[in-house]
Amino acid sequence: MMKLIDLTHVFSANMPVYPGDSSPELKQTAFIAAQGYNSYGLRGGMHVGTHMDAPLHMIPDGAFMSDIPVTQFFGRGRLVDARGRAALTEDLLDNVALEAGDVVLVLTGRHKLFRSPEYYESFPQVTPSFAERLVSAGVSILGLDTPSPDSPPFSVHKILLSNNVLIVENLNDLELLLGTPEFEVFAVPSKYQCEAAPVRVIARVRENT
Amino acid sequence: MMKLIDLTHVFSANMPVYPGDSSPELKQTAFIAAQGYNSYGLRGGMHVGTHMDAPLHMIPDGAFMSDIPVTQFFGRGRLVDARGRAALTEDLLDNVALEAGDVVLVLTGRHKLFRSPEYYESFPQVTPSFAERLVSAGVSILGLDTPSPDSPPFSVHKILLSNNVLIVENLNDLELLLGTPEFEVFAVPSKYQCEAAPVRVIARVRENT
Repeated sequence: MMKLIDLTHVFSANMPVYPGDSSPELKQTAFIAAQGYNSYGLRGGMHVGTHMDAPLHMIPDGAFMSDIPVTQFFGRGRLVDARGRAALTEDLLDNVALEAGDVVLVLTGRHKLFRSPEYYESFPQVTPSFAERLVSAGVSILGLDTPSPDSPPFSVHKILLSNNVLIVENLNDLELLLGTPEFEVFAVPSKYQCEAAPVRVIARVRENT
Repeated sequence: MMKLIDLTHVFSANMPVYPGDSSPELKQTAFIAAQGYNSYGLRGGMHVGTHMDAPLHMIPDGAFMSDIPVTQFFGRGRLVDARGRAALTEDLLDNVALEAGDVVLVLTGRHKLFRSPEYYESFPQVTPSFAERLVSAGVSILGLDTPSPDSPPFSVHKILLSNNVLIVENLNDLELLLGTPEFEVFAVPSKYQCEAAPVRVIARVRENT
């Protein structure tokens, strides 16, 4: 039997945002009692909640989200347990066999702070050598349960995106994958013609029978 | 070998909308030359481009998009060839073996008109008896390459959504599935706490070897 695990935060009316970004607005605009149906409107940027960065975010003439072939959104998952680490350093990958097309998910456990101010104040950052190792292996996607792999001037973002490694930020519940030797990841973004998009991230794991 | 087929329209800066809906805005707000990165902002409703309706859209106290378990987004695909039909009537299902959890995709071929005014002016509509047959079979999702299964007062929407059959509107390229006896569908929406959401729809088909 296969089990699906949703690794995506709910996008609600009150979303935390990266410091300096403006808050999105998700608001009901039509009501069954008045219009016969319910509708909501949304206003905001792309880097809110669980989302994916495309190369265009940091790379001149980089690929738009809508340009990326769907094959890149599916891959074998590799979980990196980085709980308790102050930085995401290359040695975390020493016992992780990587292949081209893999989706690397890094568990820090900080998803539990997602709706508290602390979540954005400090978080373990990816080192350039960690990022370069993902690039060498031909990894498709790096996913994190933190707001970002790095801070300005975003050298790690640029290493990854210039080498076509997509970045998923603000993942939820990665600890549910602990002890799962094999799983697939579906990281499926909206097909927006821009630099990033909300993404639904789902792991498919084989259950013990 | 498995092949993935993307059945989703690109969401660009100039999107057509259902008559009476306001046009969305997708606009660049930050630029590498000025801010060091590219960002876009989006403002609009949920019923634009390829999207999924949740029960809340038409049913009082119906499920929000973010409430729906991810298992409902994956299912065996069944293609209904309705090209040339003026209405989507029950007889179209006579030779389609349906099982609980199936995703039924109806090909009208009207996706080619998506960015022309004609697309929204008239389109073949789903009859109540067609919808009831999907409900009886326990189908998970009905997907269409038209703007809607029906028109006000939306009795077909209500038959489907009150029975937990999700609706996907404005699909693209369904004709690529013609002649494909078996395929799976992944219809993966953003996890928005509202009545509908953009959805990425992907078919996985086994290629002849």
